[in-house]
Amino acid sequence: MELLFQFFSVGSAGRTVKAGELGGMFRNSMPRYEILSEDALATLDKGWRRIVTEIGVEFLSQRALDLFRQAGQQVEEKNVKFDPDFVLEQVAKAPREFDVQARNPAHSVHIGGDAMVFGGVYGPPFVREGEVRRDATMDDFRNFTRLAQSFPGLDSAGGVICEPNDAPLDSRHLDMVYALQTLTDKIYMGNVVSGVNARDTIRMTEILFGGREKIENVPATISLINCNSPLRWDDRMLEAQFEYTAANQPVVLTPFLLMGAMSPVSIPATLVQQMAEALTGITLSQLIRPGAPVIFGSFLSNIDMQSGSPCFGTPESAVGLLCTGQIARHFGLPARSGGGLTSSQVPDAQAAYEGLMTMLPTFLAGINWVMHTAGWLDGGLVASYEKFVIDMQVLEMLQKEFTPLEIDEESLAFEAHEEVGHGGHFLGAAHTLERFRTCFYRPFLSSSDNYDRWVKRGAKDAAARAGDIWRKRLEDYEQPHLDDAVREELADYVTRRRRELGD
Amino acid sequence: MELLFQFFSVGSAGRTVKAGELGGMFRNSMPRYEILSEDALATLDKGWRRIVTEIGVEFLSQRALDLFRQAGQQVEEKNVKFDPDFVLEQVAKAPREFDVQARNPAHSVHIGGDAMVFGGVYGPPFVREGEVRRDATMDDFRNFTRLAQSFPGLDSAGGVICEPNDAPLDSRHLDMVYALQTLTDKIYMGNVVSGVNARDTIRMTEILFGGREKIENVPATISLINCNSPLRWDDRMLEAQFEYTAANQPVVLTPFLLMGAMSPVSIPATLVQQMAEALTGITLSQLIRPGAPVIFGSFLSNIDMQSGSPCFGTPESAVGLLCTGQIARHFGLPARSGGGLTSSQVPDAQAAYEGLMTMLPTFLAGINWVMHTAGWLDGGLVASYEKFVIDMQVLEMLQKEFTPLEIDEESLAFEAHEEVGHGGHFLGAAHTLERFRTCFYRPFLSSSDNYDRWVKRGAKDAAARAGDIWRKRLEDYEQPHLDDAVREELADYVTRRRRELGD
Repeated sequence: MELLFQFFSVGSAGRTVKAGELGGMFRNSMPRYEILSEDALATLDKGWRRIVTEIGVEFLSQRALDLFRQAGQQVEEKNVKFDPDFVLEQVAKAPREFDVQARNPAHSVHIGGDAMVFGGVYGPPFVREGEVRRDATMDDFRNFTRLAQSFPGLDSAGGVICEPNDAPLDSRHLDMVYALQTLTDKIYMGNVVSGVNARDTIRMTEILFGGREKIENVPATISLINCNSPLRWDDRMLEAQFEYTAANQPVVLTPFLLMGAMSPVSIPATLVQQMAEALTGITLSQLIRPGAPVIFGSFLSNIDMQSGSPCFGTPESAVGLLCTGQIARHFGLPARSGGGLTSSQVPDAQAAYEGLMTMLPTFLAGINWVMHTAGWLDGGLVASYEKFVIDMQVLEMLQKEFTPLEIDEESLAFEAHEEVGHGGHFLGAAHTLERFRTCFYRPFLSSSDNYDRWVKRGAKDAAARAGDIWRKRLEDYEQPHLDDAVREELADYVTRRRRELGD
Repeated sequence: MELLFQFFSVGSAGRTVKAGELGGMFRNSMPRYEILSEDALATLDKGWRRIVTEIGVEFLSQRALDLFRQAGQQVEEKNVKFDPDFVLEQVAKAPREFDVQARNPAHSVHIGGDAMVFGGVYGPPFVREGEVRRDATMDDFRNFTRLAQSFPGLDSAGGVICEPNDAPLDSRHLDMVYALQTLTDKIYMGNVVSGVNARDTIRMTEILFGGREKIENVPATISLINCNSPLRWDDRMLEAQFEYTAANQPVVLTPFLLMGAMSPVSIPATLVQQMAEALTGITLSQLIRPGAPVIFGSFLSNIDMQSGSPCFGTPESAVGLLCTGQIARHFGLPARSGGGLTSSQVPDAQAAYEGLMTMLPTFLAGINWVMHTAGWLDGGLVASYEKFVIDMQVLEMLQKEFTPLEIDEESLAFEAHEEVGHGGHFLGAAHTLERFRTCFYRPFLSSSDNYDRWVKRGAKDAAARAGDIWRKRLEDYEQPHLDDAVREELADYVTRRRRELGD
């Protein structure tokens, strides 16, 4: 048997094809796991209709309020009370599915339907690298961007992968967009700190893709618009939404719901609030530009009721996630949720089980746009290099798991049973020899070494091995080609705008 | 907000009700996630029928061969070729569901339907305790048994929780059964090393429950009969099966399938082999005693095709598991599969994600009898104290996650939205104050401490905290009451039989 394995090792040249390396975006054609009955959905529908009718949703933007008033909705100061049927009419104008182009067409993606698109962690001010936790820097931002480029399972580095605290505050969005545009050739997220930042992102996207018309025809950046839950959309986020939506760039309208703090301590109540918030945000987008691409967003977990700390990977968040996918389909909208979320401070067992408690339901729910796929740690305060690698391992496994089985006569391999018979083994069977290179997914992080070999290789746990992997990936990183003239125009834009912004 | 949390802390007296503490066996009334189409099931059905007809299954037991011959099946030396319709007739005699009694009636369980019953790890010769990996001892066996008693989410300590290498070989089954009977009042598994060991287990079970009739009426121990896959049932296992089945004690007929070694490198081919093996084993049980309780067993993963090492928590094993639940229901049989399986050497991120890659599909598939729920490490060679605690944490989370949502008017908490309105928070809302103690599952292992508090508490990762927890649980352990006369009779039996066995 030893000999056989040696043969296998040579034969397979050390590598088999991995799910994520097959190229292109992942399509989840497995069944959806739906847990809401028609009655339950009807009850939830009554719930959001009552909220938007009787309580209303605040929009801290005069432009938004004007649009709602013109459209016949009841505006009282900053609060808007909606006719729910009007909301549904507007929501129906949004596309069910749309494309987002990358500068490398092989990395362009489809949002909606059975497509699942994955982006890196978004927003952490801190970084963890092994035992060290520290402020994130622009170098970290660039490193995570390079890592995102190097993992085929990831469709996007994301946007604010970490907050580069050493870059000047007013102009760092320019540095981030420039890094995303030049260090990867995948899709990237836009800055949403203000309308100004959004305009810069759009302008730089026009430069990269060859003009406004090009990106209005097929969107090229995707942006996160968070609700200041409960029931309030803030001015700066709305300013960004106005810019992106006017330019036909998709926005992810996302209620930010930690049950117990931003929503009631009830999953159904929270789902209803999420519907009220997301649908009214989407309504605004359709008033700004009918037919503009949007995503029904969800960021839904709960706090610890004793400490007030946010908790992630909880049973409640998983249930909310499963419901959210079904609810978005109910409205004919692409859904955003999921990610490798955890409260853990380190990339340990808790980080792994909480992350998977979120990511497996993400696949079951058929979520279309998945932020925080890789690198999230410490409730989102930390971007972790090791966790990034662990999350990518889990993502590849799930992409393989959610690839439908082909069951036909040939797959039954009757000839292998005829060959091996009773009590033998299949290691050397012809059926095995023809397929051993690609028959199973081969992990890049997980170890199945026996104890002696594991000790001989340094007795490293998964986090330590993940450390070796990301360092090697950065060493091996190759920057994707970009036309010099385009790069210069982008660099000039960054220089000029930084000066104008006074940084 | 700080004040509020202080109030909450005092108000909740440090504890909320946990899912597992609500008592009784878990029932999974969430939908099943089924991925096999009717066509796929029909193809698989053709497959096992062809195997049992054309290749046959070996039974290394003259008694079994005689039974099959008498029943009109084609016996050629040790190989039996079956009429598949005869197999289905026998399978149809097995009960769809049945009870297994514990000496504490509150811990009796139901096997089948939507019931899910969980037992500890089974079989490891080694133990890991923190950084130390060593031979397992009888003291370890007793400690794991005590831990199983102390975690309400676990229905059984299992059987051979670890192999007590310091106990005399021929009589250690007596020590194990005695420990399971006296240190827990939950159901326990029987020894299957030989017919002799099985008879001892049954006799001790008769003593504990008050006679043969009592346990023939309602079974009181459950035993694992593994197939020597491919397509061979071995003599010692069959001897044990004859004993348990004749006494109406349930057996779990389990093909042992690591794809690439014991089955072809194809999931459909492996499922078909699993059906052929399990169904013929079940056929034997129905010839021994028509109507005897059985479980359709599955232990299905794959090897690493380069090293030959077994891999666990793989995408292929998860897919196999989902199919297995559906296939068992197709035959009207309870299913065994799942567990916190992993290849990892330590209770790290890999151990956690591989374990959950198995346990979450276990719930999705509605598996009825789950072995290896807690403590499995290193491909099953190691029983780990820390992993036991991690697994129990994950189990409780899943039990909570797979509890159906109640969605009605009241759950929408409209009054909370009326109270809080726009941009506020729900911490002090009346709806929250009425429910904060029990609204969310509270983990006993996972930490949501912020960084400073986590450092102040010793900067412990999940494995280190798990170490604190199991030590505390052992300190706090209370042995369940057992009538002195029964305990003495059991002890006398152990002493006498040990002498007879020459140990």
